[in-house]
Amino acid sequence: MATSNARPSRPRAQLKTPKGTRDWVGWDLLLRDHIFQTVTDVFKRHGGIPLDTPAFELKDVLAEKYGEDSRLIYDLEDQGGELCSLRYDLTVPFARWLAMRTDVQHIKRYQIAKVYRRDQPAISRCRLREFYQCDFDIAGVYDPMIPDAEILRIIVEVFRGLQLDITIKLNHRRILDGSFAVAGVPEEKNRLISSAVDKLDKATWIDVKKEMVEEKGLSGEVADRIGEYVRRSGGLREMINLLQSDPRLDANESVKAGLDDMGLLVSYLEVLDVVDKVSFDLSLARGLDYYSGLIYEVVPASTNSLGQIGSIAAGGRYDGLVGMYGKHPIPCVGLSFGIDRIFTILDARRNKSSSELTREVDVYIVAAGGKEYDGLLLDRMAVARQLWDAGIRAEFTAKVKPKLPPQFNASKDVPLAVILGQDELAAGQVRLKNARAGDKETDQKDRDQLVSREDLVEEVKKLFPAVARERE
Amino acid sequence: MATSNARPSRPRAQLKTPKGTRDWVGWDLLLRDHIFQTVTDVFKRHGGIPLDTPAFELKDVLAEKYGEDSRLIYDLEDQGGELCSLRYDLTVPFARWLAMRTDVQHIKRYQIAKVYRRDQPAISRCRLREFYQCDFDIAGVYDPMIPDAEILRIIVEVFRGLQLDITIKLNHRRILDGSFAVAGVPEEKNRLISSAVDKLDKATWIDVKKEMVEEKGLSGEVADRIGEYVRRSGGLREMINLLQSDPRLDANESVKAGLDDMGLLVSYLEVLDVVDKVSFDLSLARGLDYYSGLIYEVVPASTNSLGQIGSIAAGGRYDGLVGMYGKHPIPCVGLSFGIDRIFTILDARRNKSSSELTREVDVYIVAAGGKEYDGLLLDRMAVARQLWDAGIRAEFTAKVKPKLPPQFNASKDVPLAVILGQDELAAGQVRLKNARAGDKETDQKDRDQLVSREDLVEEVKKLFPAVARERE
Repeated sequence: MATSNARPSRPRAQLKTPKGTRDWVGWDLLLRDHIFQTVTDVFKRHGGIPLDTPAFELKDVLAEKYGEDSRLIYDLEDQGGELCSLRYDLTVPFARWLAMRTDVQHIKRYQIAKVYRRDQPAISRCRLREFYQCDFDIAGVYDPMIPDAEILRIIVEVFRGLQLDITIKLNHRRILDGSFAVAGVPEEKNRLISSAVDKLDKATWIDVKKEMVEEKGLSGEVADRIGEYVRRSGGLREMINLLQSDPRLDANESVKAGLDDMGLLVSYLEVLDVVDKVSFDLSLARGLDYYSGLIYEVVPASTNSLGQIGSIAAGGRYDGLVGMYGKHPIPCVGLSFGIDRIFTILDARRNKSSSELTREVDVYIVAAGGKEYDGLLLDRMAVARQLWDAGIRAEFTAKVKPKLPPQFNASKDVPLAVILGQDELAAGQVRLKNARAGDKETDQKDRDQLVSREDLVEEVKKLFPAVARERE
Repeated sequence: MATSNARPSRPRAQLKTPKGTRDWVGWDLLLRDHIFQTVTDVFKRHGGIPLDTPAFELKDVLAEKYGEDSRLIYDLEDQGGELCSLRYDLTVPFARWLAMRTDVQHIKRYQIAKVYRRDQPAISRCRLREFYQCDFDIAGVYDPMIPDAEILRIIVEVFRGLQLDITIKLNHRRILDGSFAVAGVPEEKNRLISSAVDKLDKATWIDVKKEMVEEKGLSGEVADRIGEYVRRSGGLREMINLLQSDPRLDANESVKAGLDDMGLLVSYLEVLDVVDKVSFDLSLARGLDYYSGLIYEVVPASTNSLGQIGSIAAGGRYDGLVGMYGKHPIPCVGLSFGIDRIFTILDARRNKSSSELTREVDVYIVAAGGKEYDGLLLDRMAVARQLWDAGIRAEFTAKVKPKLPPQFNASKDVPLAVILGQDELAAGQVRLKNARAGDKETDQKDRDQLVSREDLVEEVKKLFPAVARERE
């Protein structure tokens, strides 16, 4: 404040990104692109169609969709005109789009984009206020659990592509609601109790019970009966049998309907080679209001080196959401990948030998010479033009008369160097130096050769056959 | 209002995106991705390093960077904590990042991301409030005009990659400022007069003069002298000669310095094969405050079918901006592509035979059968699993017992169909149908063949050799 009083007309801006946000640069972004590419390939393999919605929506569109979490929504300032908020997830914008597009009765859509939450940031646990989500949803009237099974199959394919071992925790909203009813929870407290139960992956049962009784007004007995149910987990078939053998649960219509779904699901997951990755976990509740059927969360199979990183993908069925916007109800099931958490896991196992800012260049063009050396700038430019025209990645030092050491320094991460000298140029030649061949026992010729200007592109492509194929 | 009074607890949200924004879906997005891919390839070819910054910055970071246009900045509501604004461009966030990273003395960075401006939207002219920018900047102390020439070369490579014929309009801030001084413009009015001159591509000289005299308080004589200068344009060498031959201009230090730069530039652009694309246009002013040297705008070489679409890329040198944040000044030159306008041009020449929502799937799995047909759901799933495991894009109808017509309808944009029948399955076989072979004179076998389940993947890959190579 003192500073801005002293120079009121020009307060110097604080040099930081806003709380809970960060910059990404260089190799980090290339790794993130690799994740996006892997995920997108799987989405397309399943017939996915891309969608991109604005970063902000009308405030009303987001209203009453997120329960307690609505307080985390970023609003835009009222500068005249419409009231808008930054999107909180990609599901509600998708539902809004679907509700607008009355010509679309079914779609598999995917979207990869940033979302915004005014949560308490915790960078070490990858909880940021701006983060990527990456969603795949199947909308349409289909037979029960077929799209749900495909979503779980997609999870398995994505993490197989990323070479990451995972467990999918499953539950069903109707089984959860039904068992709450059997335990004696009043219906209007279902969502409150759900959100307490959902904390069981991070908190102890003692704490969760305390929250139910002291904050949410449940009796201790009812809480204990909930505890009996929700602390169970195991394989799908095993858990279905266990729940069906409980006469109180089996008598509840909601539980029964959920168990019918789970029975279908297990037969599909067996055929799709997914069942081994799945755990039926009755404590899984998912905080969001709009889920209506199957719900799931993905956690790494081993978290030893990374501590509690939380779920790396999650989703569920939400049959009522699109209908909230009008006369075009359409059942949906979907999935969201937590890209930043997946990034953190893959980043931890990356080889960190090159610097964050290393660029991917194929050729560095170097000027060398004796007393009458003038920097050969136009010659370096002419060679660069020749290489760029052929799609080869090339750089040179943007100085008229650069010395040799800074040029070699700038070329040190670059596999090939083209070295220009006055005499060679006069003879129509340049020197091609292969840094990669340096450590192996190769011909002198492979490491360092004189080539004519006309053959240069050809020679470079010989050394990068893949590059040449890809970029032509 | 009546509706929300009638049901105050649940106003139905308006079904639209906020003013000036839109959704993107399907083929539109695939075309946009093609543009991003082309641009990114060129950026990497020139040693570019990717950067991604948050969608919002501290409000102070954006303050006093955009002159009159600051009123177009979107602010976030003050919900406690820091005051933030949505980014207006990618240049200021890059300058903020550079100022923070005192370890970085030079970099070529690129960024592709959405920016936000509360402008009057005009969708027909591609002026939206949320739109993509796609920036490449070279930061660092280098010899004059070498990075500037490379930026112009990048423009040419990108539009060559997109097969779009363009003209680059060039000017130099110091020539502009110097000729204003010679004409008699008081220095403090330079930026005001600049922004008036900048309108000459859309408005007549009469209107621009009127703005200068009536709104900006210039005398008619001074305005006329400006008019003499700024209405000139032509080839680079020709214009340099013309300006040097004017003794009043040639006596001005600022004009002289600018012309020295332009002289260097033309020799570089000749070697880089860019000079034919360039027009030296003294009316080009660029609205933004931070430009300090060369400035440029790219327009399509022919706009006949599209009307006035405006510039499709633009940029310039901004040597002072990074220094505004602290003690780490660093000269920069950069470029921003107007992705949405480029999209509009490419979209207009696209073949619109397939629907917006067509997906890219290789194989559709169809169940067929007679009286005892049960839908073969688990068999369809098993075949899908087999194809997905091999990276082949495959779909089936998510119904237990689908009829044939809807299955064939769903498969109509898909090149291959795998048809399952009870008898063939019992013999370990499926029928493979190639829709693409249909219209040509090919063997019956190419169109429709029985293959064993074990050979299915192999047979599909034979029909898609490129697919098989790419996805393995």
